[in-house]
This record gives sequence, C-alpha cells and structure tokens, in this order.
Amino acid sequence: MKQVPFAADRIHFGGDYNPEQWPREVWDEDMRLMRESGVSIVSLGIFGWAQVEPRPGEYDFAWVDDVMDRLAGAEVAVSLATMTASPPPWMARLHPETLPVREDGTVLHPGARQHYCPSSPVYRRYAVALVERLAERYGDHPALALWHVGNEYGCHVSLSYSYAAEEGFRAWLRERYGDLDALNDAWSTAFWSQRYGDWEEVQPPRTAPTFPNPAQQLDFRRYSSDALLACYAAEVEVLRRVTPQVPVTTNLLGVWKPVDYFRWAPQLDVVSHDSYPDPNDPETHVRVAFAYDLMRSIGDGAPWLLMEQAPSAVNWRRRNAPKRDGQMRLWSYQAIAHGADAIMYFQWRQSRGGAEKFHSAMVPHAGTDTRVHRAVRELGRELDGLAELAGTRTAADVAVMLDWSSWWALELESHPSADLLQMEAVHEHYLPLWEANVACDVVSPGGDLGRYRLVVVPNLYLLSGADAARLDRFVRDGGHVIVSFFSGIVDEADRVHLGGYPAPLCETLGISVEEHWPLDDGEEVALELGDERGTGTLWSEHVRLEGAEAVAVFGSGELAGRPAVTRHGRGRGVATYVATRPERPLMASILARACADAGVAPVHLSLPPGVEATRRRGDDGREYLFLLNHGRGTAEVALAPGADDLLGGRVDDGTLLLEERGVAIVREQGSATTAQGRPR
Amino acid sequence: MKQVPFAADRIHFGGDYNPEQWPREVWDEDMRLMRESGVSIVSLGIFGWAQVEPRPGEYDFAWVDDVMDRLAGAEVAVSLATMTASPPPWMARLHPETLPVREDGTVLHPGARQHYCPSSPVYRRYAVALVERLAERYGDHPALALWHVGNEYGCHVSLSYSYAAEEGFRAWLRERYGDLDALNDAWSTAFWSQRYGDWEEVQPPRTAPTFPNPAQQLDFRRYSSDALLACYAAEVEVLRRVTPQVPVTTNLLGVWKPVDYFRWAPQLDVVSHDSYPDPNDPETHVRVAFAYDLMRSIGDGAPWLLMEQAPSAVNWRRRNAPKRDGQMRLWSYQAIAHGADAIMYFQWRQSRGGAEKFHSAMVPHAGTDTRVHRAVRELGRELDGLAELAGTRTAADVAVMLDWSSWWALELESHPSADLLQMEAVHEHYLPLWEANVACDVVSPGGDLGRYRLVVVPNLYLLSGADAARLDRFVRDGGHVIVSFFSGIVDEADRVHLGGYPAPLCETLGISVEEHWPLDDGEEVALELGDERGTGTLWSEHVRLEGAEAVAVFGSGELAGRPAVTRHGRGRGVATYVATRPERPLMASILARACADAGVAPVHLSLPPGVEATRRRGDDGREYLFLLNHGRGTAEVALAPGADDLLGGRVDDGTLLLEERGVAIVREQGSATTAQGRPR
Amino acid sequence: MKQVPFAADRIHFGGDYNPEQWPREVWDEDMRLMRESGVSIVSLGIFGWAQVEPRPGEYDFAWVDDVMDRLAGAEVAVSLATMTASPPPWMARLHPETLPVREDGTVLHPGARQHYCPSSPVYRRYAVALVERLAERYGDHPALALWHVGNEYGCHVSLSYSYAAEEGFRAWLRERYGDLDALNDAWSTAFWSQRYGDWEEVQPPRTAPTFPNPAQQLDFRRYSSDALLACYAAEVEVLRRVTPQVPVTTNLLGVWKPVDYFRWAPQLDVVSHDSYPDPNDPETHVRVAFAYDLMRSIGDGAPWLLMEQAPSAVNWRRRNAPKRDGQMRLWSYQAIAHGADAIMYFQWRQSRGGAEKFHSAMVPHAGTDTRVHRAVRELGRELDGLAELAGTRTAADVAVMLDWSSWWALELESHPSADLLQMEAVHEHYLPLWEANVACDVVSPGGDLGRYRLVVVPNLYLLSGADAARLDRFVRDGGHVIVSFFSGIVDEADRVHLGGYPAPLCETLGISVEEHWPLDDGEEVALELGDERGTGTLWSEHVRLEGAEAVAVFGSGELAGRPAVTRHGRGRGVATYVATRPERPLMASILARACADAGVAPVHLSLPPGVEATRRRGDDGREYLFLLNHGRGTAEVALAPGADDLLGGRVDDGTLLLEERGVAIVREQGSATTAQGRPR
Repeated sequence: MKQVPFAADRIHFGGDYNPEQWPREVWDEDMRLMRESGVSIVSLGIFGWAQVEPRPGEYDFAWVDDVMDRLAGAEVAVSLATMTASPPPWMARLHPETLPVREDGTVLHPGARQHYCPSSPVYRRYAVALVERLAERYGDHPALALWHVGNEYGCHVSLSYSYAAEEGFRAWLRERYGDLDALNDAWSTAFWSQRYGDWEEVQPPRTAPTFPNPAQQLDFRRYSSDALLACYAAEVEVLRRVTPQVPVTTNLLGVWKPVDYFRWAPQLDVVSHDSYPDPNDPETHVRVAFAYDLMRSIGDGAPWLLMEQAPSAVNWRRRNAPKRDGQMRLWSYQAIAHGADAIMYFQWRQSRGGAEKFHSAMVPHAGTDTRVHRAVRELGRELDGLAELAGTRTAADVAVMLDWSSWWALELESHPSADLLQMEAVHEHYLPLWEANVACDVVSPGGDLGRYRLVVVPNLYLLSGADAARLDRFVRDGGHVIVSFFSGIVDEADRVHLGGYPAPLCETLGISVEEHWPLDDGEEVALELGDERGTGTLWSEHVRLEGAEAVAVFGSGELAGRPAVTRHGRGRGVATYVATRPERPLMASILARACADAGVAPVHLSLPPGVEATRRRGDDGREYLFLLNHGRGTAEVALAPGADDLLGGRVDDGTLLLEERGVAIVREQGSATTAQGRPR
Repeated sequence: MKQVPFAADRIHFGGDYNPEQWPREVWDEDMRLMRESGVSIVSLGIFGWAQVEPRPGEYDFAWVDDVMDRLAGAEVAVSLATMTASPPPWMARLHPETLPVREDGTVLHPGARQHYCPSSPVYRRYAVALVERLAERYGDHPALALWHVGNEYGCHVSLSYSYAAEEGFRAWLRERYGDLDALNDAWSTAFWSQRYGDWEEVQPPRTAPTFPNPAQQLDFRRYSSDALLACYAAEVEVLRRVTPQVPVTTNLLGVWKPVDYFRWAPQLDVVSHDSYPDPNDPETHVRVAFAYDLMRSIGDGAPWLLMEQAPSAVNWRRRNAPKRDGQMRLWSYQAIAHGADAIMYFQWRQSRGGAEKFHSAMVPHAGTDTRVHRAVRELGRELDGLAELAGTRTAADVAVMLDWSSWWALELESHPSADLLQMEAVHEHYLPLWEANVACDVVSPGGDLGRYRLVVVPNLYLLSGADAARLDRFVRDGGHVIVSFFSGIVDEADRVHLGGYPAPLCETLGISVEEHWPLDDGEEVALELGDERGTGTLWSEHVRLEGAEAVAVFGSGELAGRPAVTRHGRGRGVATYVATRPERPLMASILARACADAGVAPVHLSLPPGVEATRRRGDDGREYLFLLNHGRGTAEVALAPGADDLLGGRVDDGTLLLEERGVAIVREQGSATTAQGRPR
Repeated sequence: MKQVPFAADRIHFGGDYNPEQWPREVWDEDMRLMRESGVSIVSLGIFGWAQVEPRPGEYDFAWVDDVMDRLAGAEVAVSLATMTASPPPWMARLHPETLPVREDGTVLHPGARQHYCPSSPVYRRYAVALVERLAERYGDHPALALWHVGNEYGCHVSLSYSYAAEEGFRAWLRERYGDLDALNDAWSTAFWSQRYGDWEEVQPPRTAPTFPNPAQQLDFRRYSSDALLACYAAEVEVLRRVTPQVPVTTNLLGVWKPVDYFRWAPQLDVVSHDSYPDPNDPETHVRVAFAYDLMRSIGDGAPWLLMEQAPSAVNWRRRNAPKRDGQMRLWSYQAIAHGADAIMYFQWRQSRGGAEKFHSAMVPHAGTDTRVHRAVRELGRELDGLAELAGTRTAADVAVMLDWSSWWALELESHPSADLLQMEAVHEHYLPLWEANVACDVVSPGGDLGRYRLVVVPNLYLLSGADAARLDRFVRDGGHVIVSFFSGIVDEADRVHLGGYPAPLCETLGISVEEHWPLDDGEEVALELGDERGTGTLWSEHVRLEGAEAVAVFGSGELAGRPAVTRHGRGRGVATYVATRPERPLMASILARACADAGVAPVHLSLPPGVEATRRRGDDGREYLFLLNHGRGTAEVALAPGADDLLGGRVDDGTLLLEERGVAIVREQGSATTAQGRPR
C-alpha cells in the first residue's frame, strides 16, 4: 500500500463547502468567516456535477474557477471532489438503464442522490470523462491539496440488480471461478436443483420464493463491493495519470457493512472517514472509538482524516438530538486521540433547502452569534496550536478481528439464530477493552497478526482453512486468542467445515462443538466462571473438551455442567473459547484474564469510569496521552509528576482535574514501561 | 364563493341507496320503510357506472329511471351521484394506462374501487361523457335535489405516479413556475446535483435511493390534490352548464391529509362530509368536533350535510365496535350542534356481498326488528320535528389555523424529529378548548383573521412571508395568537427562513430560536409555569428572548432555566409562543390565559366534564344551546330560568338533567352577554 | 378414494436421501450407516431435476441408476421423487413466463426453489415429460416402493398472479359459473361498480386501491389450490398409466392454509406428512396432535407416513432450538400414536452448503458420534421391533369441523374483527379436548358426520345451506354439536345469509344473533357460567334466545345479562352455541359438559397433566394404548393389571412409571367399556 502522508504538518480543520447553493455575496462572507474560524481546508464540489455539466458533454467550470481562486486567496486548501457522487437529471432521462434496481425489480429514480447503478458502464464512462476534465483543469491549481473521489460510496445504493449488474456479476464470477463446474461446486448447486448449465443462467440473487442460495448472495455482496471499488478505481486511474502529485481519498463510512474497506485500503493515499455519533445513544462514543480504530487500521496506522462530522444535530435519524455543550469538542478530540489529523464537518453553511437543511452546519441558519458556531470557531483556533500532534501514531497490543465476507455470510438467513449480528458481537467484545483502556487495532484474518499479543475473534463465522492455519500458527508462536461462538463454521463459499465445529480451529482451541443451542428471545442461561456467577444470552452450544480446560460452565438448562468458556494452552500460546454471550461483567473478566495472560497493559491505570485514555507517539519518541471524560461529573486522573496538558488543564500534585466532557492531552516522554513501548 | 344554501327548510335525513344490489321486490319494501323512518333524501347511484354503461358508450338508464320515479313517488329527494367514483372493469382492460401507479411502480388493478389515476385524460373523458348524459336525462326530474359528484375524492388513491401524472405534473409546474430557473430555485436543486436542464427531466418523486427532494414532494402533493380537484371541476363544469339550477356537492373526508379542502370550497354549493368516529377511541368525539368545525369553516359557516355516518359499526378498522345505545343519536346531534343540516348514513340496506357487507346499515342483515334500525327510525322521526334549526349558524371567537401545504411539508422526512404530526399538534391545542367549551373555527393562513379574537397556530411549519405579515398585522391590530414550536420555519417551497427561527414571526413573538432540541422517544423535560409544575415531551428548543417575557421555563435538561413559553405584547395584541409540547393541564392553563386575555368566553360556564356545549343562531336572533353529554353518568347543567329543551328534557329549578349520552337543545333568546354575541 | 395401504408390515424408518450433494465415497458409508440405523426406506431425488435434465430434453440418469442399485443392495426401499419440485435454472432463462408473480407484480426468480407458477402450461409440460421418463426407467426397479410426487406443494408459492394464472383462473371460473351473469351474481359485482361485461375483464385479485372483492379472492384461493392439485394430478396420471402397481403420494404440510387437502385426498394412495414442531413453543405437541388427526382424517383413518421431521433443530425459524434429549423420540411416537406407520426425516446427511445446511440431519456435520445420530439410530432399532403396530387404526367419537374455503374466507379483510384466525379458534377448542384425552377426528362440512357423537364447529364462517342442513339433520338424529361464534355467516360465495346470524343454523341452535360486538385488543368481558366466573376475549355479540336456554351470560359491558353460551335440545340431539372466546377453564367446562351429554369418554381416565393417551386397534381386536409424557417430571399412570408395555416400561401393582418425555405402548385386549369400542 502506497501511503502518501497527507500534509502532515498540522491538525487540519474545515468542512464541506457548497457555494453553488448560495449567491456570490455570501461567498465573500464565507472567506472572511473561514479565516476567523481557523479553517485550513474545505471539500469542494461534492454535488457539483449538474452545475458543471448541465447537458451531456457541455461543461461550465466558471463558478469552480472562481471559488478555487477565492479559496487560494484565503489560504484555504481544497479537497476537490470529482463530483461524480450524484449524476445530473439528464443521465436518468437519456440513460434510464443507469438507474439502480432493487432485488424485487423496483427502479430507483432520480430526485435524491446516488441514483446510479455501480455496475453501469454508461455511468462510469460519463464519470471518467468528467474526472479527466477536472484533473486537467485543476491539477496545478495552488488550492488543490487532495482529490475527494465520489462520495460515501454505497451509502444509499450498494446492491443493484440491474441488467448491467447481472452482466458485471457474471464477468466477475467467470474471473473468480474460471468455469461453471467450479461455480456449481462453490455454490453447492446440487442442493435444491440449482445446477447451472450455462453462464447465461446465472443471475444476481433477485427476489425468490424463499431463501436464495447463500453462496450466491455472498458472492453478490463481494461483487457489489468490488463494483463500487471499480467505480472508484476508474476515477483514480485518471487522477494518478494526470495529477500524479496529488493524493487521492474518498470518505469511508466506518463500520459499514456494504463495502469491504480492507480491499479499498491499497487504493487510498489517505483514509478519510465520516462519523456521526448519535447523542441519544449512551454508548455512541464506544462505537465510534471502534470505528476510528478500524479506520486507522485500514490505513495501516497512518493518520487519517475525520472528513465529516456534524457540528451539532443531524437530520436523518427519527429524532435528531443536538450535541450538548462540549460534546462536539470532546468527540472531535476523540477522533484525534484515535489517530485523526483532521477535523472536518458536513457542512460549512447550513442549506436553506433540500433534504439536509436541518443538518447542523458550521454556520447555522441562525448565523454566527450562536452556540454552534462559537464552538466550531473555538475548536478551530485551538487546533491551530496543536501542530505537534500531526503525524504521531497509535500502537496497540490487541487486535479485534473483522472480515467483511464473514460479516455478510453471518447475517444471511436460515442460520441457527437470526439474532447473531456481527457488530453486536464486536461491540460486546470491544466495550470491556475500551472500559479497561486497552488500545486496540482491527485486523483482517489475512492481516499481520504477529504485531499483537492478543487477538480477539468475535463470531467470525466464515474462516478459510488457510486463515485458520495462520491463527493457529500465531497461537503456537506465543500469541493469545479469544474466539467466540459460531466462528470458523464455513469456508469462503459458505460451506460448512465438516467434522465438529469449528473444524479448522478445533485443534487450536482444544474443543469440538457437536451441536448449536441458540437461545430464545429473552432466554437466559446461568454461567459459573470460577466464583463469579452470571448469565449468558443469545446462544449456547454443546462443547466437548478435547484438550482444553473448562474455565466456565453452564449452570442451567439442557447443557448444565457442560463447558461454556474454555482455555487451551497450545504451543507457546493460549486459546480461549467462549460458547455463549456472557453478560458484561463476565465478559470483562474473561477479557481481563486474557489480557493479563498475554501481558497486555492498559494505556493508563486506574481511571475513573467513563474516562478514555489513548496515546499517540512521534517518530522522535515523544508521546501524548489523551484523556477524555465521557462520564458524568469531574474526574480526577493521577498523572506522573511534571506532566503537561497541551490544552492548559491544571495538574496539581500529580492529579489532573478533568471536567465533564473535558479533554487533556498530556505530553509525556517515551517510556519502556507501557505495553505500547515494547520493542518490535 | 357562491354558497347556495341547500334546501334549508329542515334537518334532512337519509342515506346512500344502492338498489342495484337488490331485486325489485326489495325496492317496494325500501320505499315503505323509508317513509316510516322519516327519510327525506337519499344518495343514489354512487357506484352505478358499470350498471349504466356496461360497455363503453353503451348506456342503460332503465333501472335508474325506475328508482328515481319510485323515490319521487315516495317524496324522497335524491342526491344523484355522477357515478364516476369507480370505473367499470372494461376501462382497465381497454385503457390500462388509466390505472393508478404507486411511487415504486406498482400498478393498482381493478377489483376494489377508485382504480383510476386522477391525472388520466382518458378517465376524465369517459367520466365527463357520462355526466353529460346524466345531467341531460335527470336535470328536470322532480326527485333531483342535488348532484353528488364522484365520491370521497382521494380516499384510496390520492397519489399516482403514472405517465399521465408525470405529464400532468410537468404542465402544472410550468404553470406555477413559468421557467426552469424558477423551478430550480424553488426546489433548491443546487443541492445534491439535482439541477434540471430540460422540462422533460422533471418527474414525480418516485422511489429514490434516499429522501427525495422535499420541495418536489411538496409540489407533487399540491399537484395531486389539484388533479383530483380538476376531476371534480370537469364534472361540475358540465353540471353547471346543463343543470344550472341544481346545487352540486361532493362528500369530503374531514381531516384528510391528501386533499386541500380550502381549495375545493369555491366549487362546492354545499359542503358534505363523511364522518366515522371510532367507538373504541375515547377521544373520538373531540376529533370529530374539530372535523365538523373544519367542514363548517370550509363552507364559510354555512350549514353542511353529514352525508355519511355509520348507523353502528364500520367494517374497515382492525376491530369494528358497534355504537353503543344512544351513541349514534348523540353523535348525530353533535354534527348538528356543529352546524350540520342533514344526518345521513352509509347505507340504507346492508349489502349481502362485497367488501362492505359488515358495515352496519339503516336496515341491517337481521332486519328491522333490531336495535340499530329502531335507533335510526326514532332519530329520523325526531329530526322531523326540528325544522326550526335549519339554516342557523355557529359563530366563534377563536380560530385554529390549518394549512394543507404546511401539513404536507411538516410530515416529510429528514426533519429534526419524525414525531411531529400535524393532527396530533392540532388535537393537543383543540382538546383543551373543547373541554372549556370554547367555540372554534378553522382558518387558513390566507383566511379572514379579523373575525377572531384569538388565533391558535399549532406547528405551522410552512408559512409564507406574506401570511406571516398578515398574522403580525392581526396582532398589532389587537388580536391574540398562540404559536407553537416549529412554526414559520420554511417558505412555500420548503426553504428555511434564515436568521433565527421562526424568522418571519420573530418580531411578532419577540423571540428568536437558535437551535431545535427534539426530545427522544419517552424523554420528558420539566416545565415551570408560574406555580404550576409539569412536563413537556416531543420537543424543546433554545429560545432567546427578544422582547417577550418568559412565562414558563424549562426545569431540567440542557435547556434548564431557558424560556419554554413566552408572551409578547405587540401593538394592541399579544403573541404567545410555546416551545415544547406541554402536558395537558399545562396546555389548558396556557390556552385559558390566552382566552382570558383575549376576552374569549366559553359557550356555557361550569359544565360537568364531558358535557359539550355549542350554540347555533338564526338570522332572526333566536339561539339554540346544544348540550351533549359525552361523559359517564347523568350530568346536571345549570340553565337560565324558563329554558326549554326542544327534545323534551326536563328543566327543574334551572337545572337540566342530562343522562349519559343524552342531548338537549335549549331554545334561548339572543343575548349580548355571550362572546359570540358581540357585534361584528 | 382408492386407499392403497402402504407396505403395512412394519413401522418404516428413513429419510430424504440426497446423494447428489456428496462424492461417491460417501455413498458407500451411507449404505453401511443406513443398515446400522435401521433405515428401511428413503426418499430419493426430490431436488434432482437439474442433475437428471441438465439441458432441456437432455437426460442423464446414470447417478440415479447407481444409487437405486446400491439401495436395492442394502435392502432399503425407495420413495422415488418425480423431481419436479424445483425446475433447473434453464427453465427460467428459456421460459421466464414460467416464473411466479406476486399480487403486486413482483416476479419471483430462480436461486431458491419452487420458482414456477403452478398455472404455467410450460412448466407442466416439462414436468410431465420428466415423469414419463422416470416412470419408464424405474417402474420395475426392485428398490421402488412408492412415488413421491413433487414436494410440499405450495410451500413457498401458492398464489401466483402471472398471465398464465389469469388465463387459468378464467377457464376455471367459466367451468364453475358457466356464464358471466352467474359470476356477477356470485361475486356481488353490483357492489362498487364491478360488474363484468366480458370474460376478458376478469383478473386475479391483483394489488388494488383497497380491499379487493372478497368472493374474487376466495375463488382465487380455490383456483390456486386446484392449480397445484392439477400439477400433482398431471404427474399422477402418467404414473398410474405407466406404473399402475406403484402407490403414489406427496408430502402434505398438515395445517396448511394454501391448499385444500380434503380435495387432494382422493388422489393420494397414502397420506404423507411433514411435521416440524417448534421446541420453543410450549404447546407445540398439541398443535401437531391436531395436525396428525387431520392427516389421518384426510386419509379416512388409514395409517399415514411421517415423511419428514427434523432429527433435532430446523434452520428456518428466527431461533431454531434443538430437540432436547428424548424429545425427538417422544414426538416420533406421538405421530405413531396418532396413526403414523412411518417415521422419516429431512434429511439423511446434513448438507455442507446451501440454504438448509443448518437443518439437523440423521448424520450431522459432526458425524455419527453425536447425540443426534445416537438418538436416531436407537429409535430406528426400536421401531424395528414394533411391526405389530403397523396397520392398526384409531377411532374417535368427536370430530372437529374444518373447511378450507371457510378458513380462506374468514381471514379476508374488512370483517368485524381482523383478529379472527381460523387456527387459533381450532386450537382453543382442540386443546381442552386434548387435555382431557378425548380422541378427535377432523371432518369437513361435507364429511360423514354420522360416525361421531359430538361435532365441534369452531368459527366456521362460511357454510352452505346444504351443509347447514346436514348439520341440523345430524343434531335431530341425536348428534351433539358445539358451534362457536361467527359461524354460518356466509354462503359459498361469501354472501351473507340474511335474516339474523347464523341464519341457516338459527333453528338448530335455537338462537339468533342480531349484531356482532367484537372486542378491542386487550378488552375482556366477564362471563358467568353457572357458578363459574371467568372472562371472554376477542368477541361478543347480541344473542337472542329463540328456543335455546342461556347456560352462560355476559357479566359486564353493553351486553351484560345477555346470553353468552346457549344450549338447545333439537330433535334427539343437543346444540350448544358459544358467543365469545371463553378463557380456557371455562372452555374446558363447556366442552366437558358437551362430552358428558354426548356420552363421549376419554381414552384413559385420570391421567396426570401433560400425559397424552391415544389408542390404536387392529382388525383382530388387539389394542394398543399409547401413553406419552409431555409434562414435567415422572408421571404415574394407573393401568389394568397385567398390562404390558411394548417398550419395556415397568408396570408395578397396576402403576406405570412414565419418566419425563417417556413413552409407553400398552398392549390391551379390546374392550367394550371404552367409548371407542362401541359398535358402529
């Protein structure tokens, strides 16, 4: 992966800028206000296509020229959009075959955005032609800092069942399988009389009388993610050719099921991320922490850009709460604490009309003398003084394993339980680690496990034999793993690994599962973990010990007395298996023991509940401890003597007072005593 | 508005008559039973099209002739349907393009009713041809009293996305906007790359990848309401030409979102209304009271016709409770109390087959020796003695403001909260007024405000600058208004009025709202209104006082201490603003204070809970006080000495005993002491 | 009905065998394991079409030949599928018009199974051609014991609205009604302007603006059931012609709304049934008991085949619980106890891939050293010793009346209450009988009532005059009936029987219902039944006594004091009417009284709760008492001295100890003292 560090000289600040919605007199004010607010970069033209190409092949860049020049004059860098996120209305009229189609045949019409089928060659042709023009025209413009390709790929349309998609899917399958026999084998078409005799018979998994073939569905998920990637790549190909000096990115949606971001990483010069925590969700900061760790990991640890967040409320949930006083600042620093080098918003000026007019903006409807604008401006100025953080990185001894294919396959129908949701499983594993302030990366099954002491594998349903073997080798070489139930069940084609679950991991784990016992809605099973008592929900199963010891047993139900959590010494490592969804205190105990076994230390010890700690480190050994108070009330944090808060917090007698929603960034000297400090 | 008073010489009584479902021997019995039941008018032929035009252009009116003659003979007047509510099956076969189409492309087929796209020129052509025949044939028939055009316009199909609708929508938009630039501006198409370059690109808001353009949706609502009105108008044009002497009407559905009845009023000679209170809803009588006030207001205060109600149960809810003993009579008089001059039912004789066979009728399946038929017959005879009520009118000092465009716009997606429903807002404002027996009209923003002392504006999201100015003038001239939150937010094209909400009303209200704080599901905020304590739900917001005083403040949450209800003296009037949804006792206090300030008196003082009072007045100054006991148990009502109940209730020592579900109509002398009596 | 007893020499044991999913080396193991497990029969090739006809008209039977020969060698009989349950992918490609279509026009695509429109002549032509080949090839094969035609007809696609269905429906209607006038009359098309002038106007009840014509819907249900039957019959015609010596069957789904099994019975040589009780449903064993009684009754009492059950969990519910230890054995014997002569499973070997890979199988993923396989093998061996049960039959004095047309009509829209569900009504009547161990048959309104002492009629909404007369004659001749509310309301065309409900049964019941009073969700009404007090839900109604006596009255609500349950002596019989849904203890009392009146005795007296008893009897007078403990803990059952449990249970001092989930089969001498023993 070619990782061009993005302008790593400051923490950037800015937002989406859509001047086409406003008359020119507003543009003058915009330039002035941007300067006053510390804006260093804007994303320009994301929905500009209809304005620059009002009729097919007829371009009008005058307004872009004007805005680019003004921004250059105001010393604001531009992340220039390729403008292809939403085609102009003429495309649907002239080429209705470019429209996306739902699985039941419903055509999605223009009137909103993203009304293109990602497989459409016509759409791609028009998009690439536009990008060529943009690259040629603005490649050397002094304001241009970055290309913003498309926008939020797959946000509204990730699966399209059009004829173009059918053609594209077939071509992709031919490439993947070579011949029909291989496809028939992979898709288990001997089942339900589905054997194909001709490529032309193969279709996307359109609405069918009952559960469509799961392998077909899984491959269509893969294809659809790749089709979006191909749209992105087609534009990038032009940009790399015409403007090789300009880095490219596109804004990723974080924990986003439709698109396999591990496959996108190689084609991004810098990772960008749009993040919209829900103020009404009391665990939203934990969920986004995981998303930030994922985004950082996608980029192999390099700093990333928080490309979009809301200054306050969004508009697209059922109930859109504003961010409370201090919350936007706190959550912005949380992104930096997890590796971001830019804080940006959607959008600069709140729209008067259209579907997002009630999405908050840096300049609200009510103007600049407002709570929201003041908070934005103050943060912009504050970040201006934190250039030293830029380019520093976060290290982790623990990785959570995530795989998009497995996620897709897990959530298909006709499984033992429809309640198994990948991100709920991840959250239940990640939350206790977050509460313990243990730094985490996210790793794919094919990633470099050797960097970690402990790998956590939540419900990794699909696991190839090769990846299982890598995990086994990791353990034998001294690594620790925690694997939770219904992992390692099927291969890449959703075919069960035979011989007792999870067959390719049985030796690693020292167990074998004979039968799944999913729990009913609301059903609980008692758990006994040493002296601890608690309950499990969602799942149980019939585990046979084959080398492992039981560290917890089921305490009720048909499986009473049988193993619920097992631990297996394997080579120089240890493999733990969790056969249910333990309630949170038990899960925390299980993870704490695994961390202790693996020699994993938290970022900071003995923090009050709700205080998050992360650390970033520069090449030169300087370290920054981030402390973020997500809890209620003021928190006291013990610090080493002489610690210094970049944000000006008072540290008396080795104690930092962190008010509610408060943040501190403590400059430290590198130390070999923390886990992250160990040599690699 | 040309308002032909409909045969204002009695309280009419009758119902829908569908003799085509029965053999002729039943017709004889029908005539006899109608006479015995006091039937004075029937609606005939509403679903007669397939029977009078069995093949296109081939008419057979013999059975209509027969029935018309029989009815004339029985001295029953006829409200003759134009029979166009549901086309015969041949139309769908010969002209499938006349079928309605849902936003996702689903075609609605024949087999039920109303299977026509209101925009279809083919449907309209056939309809008008039929109406011409009917008008020519029956214009001079002695039984003909009224034309009943179509039926319940828009009941099942109000939005159709057919090709005809697309064409019609475009033509309507050209008429509204003149050129594409104006449309692009109104629809804010600079947002999301939606700019149109050619009229042919403009479509109805069909299913799209995400929220379709809200202004496009709003205009399509307007267009669709107008398309139904155009169907109605096309028939009326024929009728006015051929039978200028016969008044025309169509039955309106009351509180009915799809159709803007304020725009229909000018084309109705008399307002007709179908009313179906739900006996399982304990507040159903309050909801219909509002609907009756709306229907009366639509017709500018003229008497209206209760064209349809159920004698007992309906058939189309999930659970269809019968009307309890006395309930049908009580609710019939409630309609009269709110200005109706006719009590009619769907339908005369309960159908044996079809989709409405379990809808109760004046003659039930079980025959005439039944609770239901007895109640009908007794009411028919009773109404026969109340001719003196006919033509009297109700006056009100208070008006509730309602606007269909605002209703449509309010309930579009991507708002701060999806829980804002226009009719819930109206109900929460109307209910305390009803409980206080304050007479209300319903007024549109463009209506004559000068008639009222107090105007209540519940959640009027869309408000043009011009209408806001009219409201301000009303206040400056001495009027009182209560405006509740999220009013005055956008203009006619759903574009935000910039500069602090509600910009065009800020001066009127003496406040400015900086930010909305919608509440989560189940979330409450404390309210402090003088000494009263309570809670608000649904909404809160950041209000800044700019001239107004805070009469209530938020008592908890992020906005604690900030204004929740404000009051602003403006010119000679007062403007109150309510920034949350107060619980009912608080709302009652707020409204009571506003009424007191405005000098609004209830219709009758000190009534027991559940007793409703209204008043109708004749040109000659005679007045009738209606008292309706919707509560539990017998109520005692204090009356002026010498009062006289037209229905024969006993008044002893100035006290009227009103039994549960009882009604009294007290004849009074006009008096200058009641609010309604003040000179205009 | 030609009822060929199926190989009545043993209790058969086996399952679906799908060797095409496995390599040949597995086939060898299969033969060995089948022998060890006591397998006597397998269903072969159910989804084999794509493998035997890879391209249209090109057949490849080699693998079937091989498997048939191996099975013959292993002495395993074959129920050979006609393989037409799911067409190969080529059919959809070459003949897209064969695909099923939903009422809203959505086409159902291949990728799952059963993607054919039952009305498609093209599908039928291909199916019949394949069956001809199979019959010719395997008619004389020594392994062939039975034809398994299609599979689970209508499981996923029972209603298709394709053009072929439209054509087929019209032809069926012409056959049923002769001319359009008759259809217009039956469908009550005078209502809502639906009168047809040409057959070409008649369509299936596609998505319409509101409730489609109920008679049209009802006839389309009938037609659709008949279309599936025609598919079956077309194949059977070939089989009877080519292989007259081989019995034919198809697996019925039990309590299955889409298909009228009473109409299939004449074309089945033996009834087969697929049964999937839900271990998470605490009353699942009662529901399947009714289904088993239905399946036995469909076959006129002959032994039937449990063609499919799951060895443990299924895969298609939201949460798929395994069968607990002993549960599969208990439920298998329950089928035998209700008349089954075969216990078979889906499927032999658990699939690796496809949509049912998590459906348990006789040979699980984890192999043969598993709880599930052990249970299967033990049962197979046990059944091997119970040949004497084969061919014995069960008799009943009570019948529950069920009619598919009535079921369909009851659950159409626009009824007094949408909460009336046929199978809930049946369950509430059947459960108390089951708890009392009263043997029941299921009878259609046209069935032979004379066999029974008591006929229970739960909510039989549709009842023809002729069937009502038969019921009346049954009572007059000494029979007892219990009829519950909303029965006898409409005729075959869903037209109300006029003159007070239920008009054709009023004389029989000695009552007349004037008006329905459905209860609201959660609403209860008090009931007084002699000294018993309780409540009713769902429904109440205004009953007038016209000869009957009130044995229970409503104790609250508008109907307080009016009859709730009535009893009427009529001729030599007694008719009871139940005007509400009594809570269970009251319902048990009502049924107990009716049984006592009718002289109906339980199969066994004084059983502990949860213990089910049934009896089978041979032609030679030998009897077998089945005792099944569905309750918690060990149950003690008093038996006649000298009783002998075929399954080896201990009987001490006339007491049998039946452990939890335990079964006993007690061999008895025929006795005239039990109800079932009375001479016919």
